[in-house]
Amino acid sequence: MRKLRVGIIGLGRIGRMHARNIKSIIQADLAAISDISEEAVNSVAEELQINQKYYDYREMLNDPSIEAVVICSSTNTHAQIIKEAASAKKHIFCEKPIALTIEEVNDALNSINISGIKFFLGFNRRFDPTFSKMKEEIKSGKIGTPHLAIITSRDPAPPSLDYVKSSGGLFLDMTIHDFDMARFMLNDEPYEIYVSASSLVDPAIGKAGDVDTAAIVITMKSGARVIINNSRKAVYGYDQRVEIFGSEGMIMNQNMPKDFAFLSNPYETQLSNPVYFFIERYKEAYIHEIETFISCVMQDEIPPVGGEDGKISLLMGYAAQKSLTENRPVKFSEVI
Amino acid sequence: MRKLRVGIIGLGRIGRMHARNIKSIIQADLAAISDISEEAVNSVAEELQINQKYYDYREMLNDPSIEAVVICSSTNTHAQIIKEAASAKKHIFCEKPIALTIEEVNDALNSINISGIKFFLGFNRRFDPTFSKMKEEIKSGKIGTPHLAIITSRDPAPPSLDYVKSSGGLFLDMTIHDFDMARFMLNDEPYEIYVSASSLVDPAIGKAGDVDTAAIVITMKSGARVIINNSRKAVYGYDQRVEIFGSEGMIMNQNMPKDFAFLSNPYETQLSNPVYFFIERYKEAYIHEIETFISCVMQDEIPPVGGEDGKISLLMGYAAQKSLTENRPVKFSEVI
Amino acid sequence: MRKLRVGIIGLGRIGRMHARNIKSIIQADLAAISDISEEAVNSVAEELQINQKYYDYREMLNDPSIEAVVICSSTNTHAQIIKEAASAKKHIFCEKPIALTIEEVNDALNSINISGIKFFLGFNRRFDPTFSKMKEEIKSGKIGTPHLAIITSRDPAPPSLDYVKSSGGLFLDMTIHDFDMARFMLNDEPYEIYVSASSLVDPAIGKAGDVDTAAIVITMKSGARVIINNSRKAVYGYDQRVEIFGSEGMIMNQNMPKDFAFLSNPYETQLSNPVYFFIERYKEAYIHEIETFISCVMQDEIPPVGGEDGKISLLMGYAAQKSLTENRPVKFSEVI
Amino acid sequence: MRKLRVGIIGLGRIGRMHARNIKSIIQADLAAISDISEEAVNSVAEELQINQKYYDYREMLNDPSIEAVVICSSTNTHAQIIKEAASAKKHIFCEKPIALTIEEVNDALNSINISGIKFFLGFNRRFDPTFSKMKEEIKSGKIGTPHLAIITSRDPAPPSLDYVKSSGGLFLDMTIHDFDMARFMLNDEPYEIYVSASSLVDPAIGKAGDVDTAAIVITMKSGARVIINNSRKAVYGYDQRVEIFGSEGMIMNQNMPKDFAFLSNPYETQLSNPVYFFIERYKEAYIHEIETFISCVMQDEIPPVGGEDGKISLLMGYAAQKSLTENRPVKFSEVI
Repeated sequence: MRKLRVGIIGLGRIGRMHARNIKSIIQADLAAISDISEEAVNSVAEELQINQKYYDYREMLNDPSIEAVVICSSTNTHAQIIKEAASAKKHIFCEKPIALTIEEVNDALNSINISGIKFFLGFNRRFDPTFSKMKEEIKSGKIGTPHLAIITSRDPAPPSLDYVKSSGGLFLDMTIHDFDMARFMLNDEPYEIYVSASSLVDPAIGKAGDVDTAAIVITMKSGARVIINNSRKAVYGYDQRVEIFGSEGMIMNQNMPKDFAFLSNPYETQLSNPVYFFIERYKEAYIHEIETFISCVMQDEIPPVGGEDGKISLLMGYAAQKSLTENRPVKFSEVI
Repeated sequence: MRKLRVGIIGLGRIGRMHARNIKSIIQADLAAISDISEEAVNSVAEELQINQKYYDYREMLNDPSIEAVVICSSTNTHAQIIKEAASAKKHIFCEKPIALTIEEVNDALNSINISGIKFFLGFNRRFDPTFSKMKEEIKSGKIGTPHLAIITSRDPAPPSLDYVKSSGGLFLDMTIHDFDMARFMLNDEPYEIYVSASSLVDPAIGKAGDVDTAAIVITMKSGARVIINNSRKAVYGYDQRVEIFGSEGMIMNQNMPKDFAFLSNPYETQLSNPVYFFIERYKEAYIHEIETFISCVMQDEIPPVGGEDGKISLLMGYAAQKSLTENRPVKFSEVI
Repeated sequence: MRKLRVGIIGLGRIGRMHARNIKSIIQADLAAISDISEEAVNSVAEELQINQKYYDYREMLNDPSIEAVVICSSTNTHAQIIKEAASAKKHIFCEKPIALTIEEVNDALNSINISGIKFFLGFNRRFDPTFSKMKEEIKSGKIGTPHLAIITSRDPAPPSLDYVKSSGGLFLDMTIHDFDMARFMLNDEPYEIYVSASSLVDPAIGKAGDVDTAAIVITMKSGARVIINNSRKAVYGYDQRVEIFGSEGMIMNQNMPKDFAFLSNPYETQLSNPVYFFIERYKEAYIHEIETFISCVMQDEIPPVGGEDGKISLLMGYAAQKSLTENRPVKFSEVI
Repeated sequence: MRKLRVGIIGLGRIGRMHARNIKSIIQADLAAISDISEEAVNSVAEELQINQKYYDYREMLNDPSIEAVVICSSTNTHAQIIKEAASAKKHIFCEKPIALTIEEVNDALNSINISGIKFFLGFNRRFDPTFSKMKEEIKSGKIGTPHLAIITSRDPAPPSLDYVKSSGGLFLDMTIHDFDMARFMLNDEPYEIYVSASSLVDPAIGKAGDVDTAAIVITMKSGARVIINNSRKAVYGYDQRVEIFGSEGMIMNQNMPKDFAFLSNPYETQLSNPVYFFIERYKEAYIHEIETFISCVMQDEIPPVGGEDGKISLLMGYAAQKSLTENRPVKFSEVI
C-alpha cells in the first residue's frame, strides 16, 4: 500500500497529538518531525520511532521524499512556513489561524495558489462527528431554511496573560472557531456584526486590552441571525453547543459528558460535567480532519476547508473588534 | 374561613383559565364575572356556577363586596379599567401589558399609587416552578456572579395578522416577557439594547410593519450580557429556555415535554416534543401567580411583580424598537 | 348540558382528590359525599360547596337521583359496598383492590354482573399520559413483538407498620399495580411467576411477615418475560419506570422530575429528582381515569379496566406469595 | 524508559484491536505477533511495523525476551496456551472465558499458581470509565447498602449459528460478562440463581439448543437481588446499562450515543441511538484494561481481575443453565 510521507513542523501539545494521530493512520507514514526544541524532537522520536529528526524545518522541506507537512508551530510563524512549504511543493495542513494580519494571509494564500499544492486549514470542529452530522441534516433540508443559530463556546479556564497578549485577542483566538462554525452550518456569509463584550472573568485581561466575555450577533446575508456567546471561564468544563433553528425544525447538540453515569441521592440527581477541554472534546475530530487531509492529497481532491475560510474568519474577527471599539454594528464589507 | 371575593373582567381564553384557577383556590371566592359578550358570561357562569354576572365591568366595580378584580380584557382597555378599579378601591391583578404607551402606563400607575391598592402584573413566567427555582439558586449564590444569560423564546405559530397589527409589535407583545425574565433572573437593570430582526417566518408580518425573528443583546448595568432570541414559529412547539451563566456555575432549563416516553427504533431514539403553547407550559405558573396575588392581598404584602416592572419592560421594548429602526445599540436612558 | 350525578364514598386523601377532580369535570355533578367522619364530610362540603352530606353511605345509595358512586373507603369495605351499590343500580368506580380474598372478589363481580351496571377499577397508571402513549405505540406495532418488560416500581418511603399489617402484603398492595401494568402493556396473560424477596429496608416489616424488596420474573403466555423490581424505599423519590423491549424496537419512560432545571457547578451537573409520590406523579392520570369513567357511563361504553382485571392481578399476587413461600416458580394455573 | 516486551497470540478482530492499543501505550513494546493465518500475521506486521512474526505461538513462548503475552485465540485454545505460557514464565492477559469446562479452568489456574506469573482476565467492562466510576461511587458509600441491581445487556444482532453452537451457550458466552458485573459492582457473591429464558429472536437458536432471550434473578449472599435481562438482538444497538439501587441512593448509566445531536421536527425530537457494538462501546475500556495489565506487571501488583473471577463467572453460568433445565432456583453451592 502506498503511504503518504508526512512531516510535522512544531511539536507542542497540538503537534504531538497530530503526530500520534498520523501514526495511527494506515495511509500515512509519519516520516519526519521538526521543532526548535531538541528535547521535544527527541522525546517524540523515541515515543513514535521516527528516524528523520530536524531542528530547522527548512531542512525537512529540502527532503524531496516528504510529500506533505503539518504546521503546528506558533501562530506568528505560520505564514512564513506556508510560503516556504508551498515553494517546496509540499501539501500543507496548517493549524488555525493562518496569520493575524490580512497582508500575511494574502501573501500566504498567494504562494499556495501559485504552487498549486493542497492547503487544509485546521478548523477541527467541522470534523466532530456531532457537528458534521448536524451539517448534513441541515444540508439535506431537515430543518428547512435556517433562521437563527445560537453558538455557545466557552473555555474552561483563561490562558496565561502572556498568551492573551500575543493571541490577537478573543475574537481572533477563540471566536474565530465560532465564526467558521456559523459559515459551515449555515452555508452563508456574514453581512453585519455587532459585539458587546468586556472582561468579567479577570480584570487583568481587560488591562491587557482584551475581553473575556462576549455576546455577538451576526446578521447573515440570507437574513439568518447568528448569536455567539463566549466566555474564557466555564467552571464546569468546555462548553461547546450549537443550535440551528429553521423554518421546519431545529437541531442542536449537547456537550460530551465525561461519563454516562447518573447518581440519585435524596437531594438531587447528579450527572457528569462536560469533558475538560478541546483535546478530549475534539479527539475524534482531530483524527477525522487529518484523515481527510491525507485523503484529499492522495485522491487529489479539494480540501473541504482552506485558505479562503481562514481569511473570512479573520476578517469577521476584525469586524467584531471594530464593532467593540466603535460600539455599533459593522458591515462585513467595511473590513474587506 | 375568610375568602377573598374576586371578580373577573374579560372572559377570553386567559380569563376563563383564571376563572377556573380561582375557583380551585380555597382562599378565594370567584364571586362575579364580566364580559361584553353575553354568551361568554353565560357559559362561564354555568360551568362554574357563578351568580353575579355583568356585561359592563363598571357595575361590578360598583359592588362594594367585591374586593379584588382580575383584568383579562383586551390590552387597549387595561389602563382605563385599572384607573376605575383603583378608584373603586379594588385590588388589581392585570394581565400584561398595562398599556402600549408610556403615558397611559404612567396614568394607571398614578391612580394605583393614589388609591393604595395592591397591583399585581401577570408576568406569569416568574411563577413557573422551574424558573422560580432557578431564580432562588441564582439568588443564593449557586452560580456566582452572572456573566451571560441566554433566553430562548419561540412561539409555536404566529398569531393572526389582525392580532399582529394591534399587538404593539414583537417586542411589546412577546419579547416583553423575556425582558422581564432578564430582570427577574439577574436582579439587574438594562443599560443598552441592540436588536437585529426581520420577518423570516411570514412576509405578511413584515408588510404589516412588524418582525417575527429577532436576536437581541442587552448589556446590563452590572456588565452581564443578556441574549434573547425570538421566533414566532417553532414547528416543534413552544420553546422556552433560559440559561444563566456565572462565575461559579451555570443553570439552565429544558423544555417541558408532552410526555416522558422514549422510543428506540433501528434508526433513532424519539422523545416527545415540548408542550404546544403557554396554556399547557405555564399551567402551574398561572395557578401560582393567582395564588400569590390572593395571598398578597389577604396578608397585606407587596406583590412581587407590579407596575414598575411593567413600565420598565415596556421601555425596554421601546429601546428595542428604536435600535431596530436606527440600526444601533440604544441606551436605556434614551427612552426614559 | 346533562351532567352525571356522582356521589363519593370515603373522603380520605384519595377520596378528596377524586372529589376535586370530579368537581372540575364539566360532564359531572358532584352531588353527594359520604364518610364516617363528620369532620371529613363537613370540610369537603365547605371547600367544594356540596349540599348532600352523608355519614352512612347506605343513605346515599337510597337517593335514586345519584347515578354513580366512587368508592374510596378502606379496602376491607370495598366488596360489601360494591354489592350494595350494584343492587341500588349505581354505576361504580372503585379504588383498587376489590378485596384481598378471591371469594369476596367473586361475590362482588357476581353482583356487578347481575345488576348490569358499569364497573371501573382504579388502576390509575393505565391513564397516565406517558404510559397510555407507550401502550398505543406498542399496540400499533412500533416495537414489533414484545420480548422483555422491565418494570421498576419503588415507593419513596414505607407506609406505617399498621398499614403494612392490614395491606395484604407487598404483592397485593404495591406490586398489584405492576402486575396490571404488565398485562396492560403486553396485552398478554401470565403463565408462571417467580419471586425472590426479603425485608432489606426495615427488619420490622420482615417481623410483620412482609417483604419490602422484591425481584419478580413473570413468564407470559406469549413467551415474553416481565421483570418487576420493587422497593418500599427509594430515597430519591417515587420511581416509576416501564421498559418494553421488542423484536423491532424498545419503548421506555423516564420519571417525571420536580422541575426542568439543570445546575452545573465545578463538580457535577445536578438535575431534579422525580416527584415525591403518586399524588404528584399520577395527577393527570387520576383526572383522565375519572373522566373516562364518567364518559363510559354517559356513552354506555364498556370500561377499559374492570372487575376481571382486578381479579387477575389479585391472583398474580397470590402466585407471587406462593412462589416466595415455596421458593419455586409457580404456574398461574395453580392459583386459579 | 523501560518498556514491557509483549507478544500477541491470535489476530482476529479482538487481537488486532489489542495490537493497536498496545502499540499506542508508551510503557509497552509490541515485540511479536502470532497467528495460524499467515495473512493475518503479515497484514498486522505491515500495519504496525512488527518484526517478530510467528505462525506457531510456541515459538514465541520460546523467546526469552518476550515478557508477557496477550491471548486472543479461539476460546477452546485458551487453557492450553495459558498452561504453556505459564510454564514459559510469561505474564498473561487472556480474553474471557478461560475455558468452557471447570476442569480445564482448574488446570489452567493451577499452572498459573505454580509459575507465579501475573494472570489478568479480559473482563473489559470493569475498565469502562462509566462503570469504574459507578463502582467507586458505590464503594465510597454514595448509595448506602445495595438492595437491587438491574443489568440490561443486549447485543445488536445474534452471532452466526456456528458461533452459537461452539459458544457454550448464552450464559457462558454473553451473560458471563453480566455475572462478573454483578460481583464487581456489589462486591458480593451469588447465593441462588433463577432463570427464565427461551429463543424468541430466532427459532434456529432454539433448535441449536440455546436461548436468545433471558430474565435472570440472582439472590446474592448479602440479600441484594440482581436482575439480568439479555437479548441477542436489540435493533437499536448495543444496550449496556447497569443500575444499582441502595438504601441511600441509586446509580445508573445511560448508553453511549453515536453522537450528541438532537433534531426536533414537528412530530418528535430525535436523538442518536447507542453505538453499534462492543468495539465502539468499550473502546476506552479496552485501552484501560491493557494499560492496567501492563502496569500490574511492571509495578509487580496483583491484577484487579484474575483467574478466580473467571472461574466464579463460569460456575454462575453453570448454575444458570441448571436453573433453566430444571425450572427452579439453583443454589450456587450446588455447582461448586
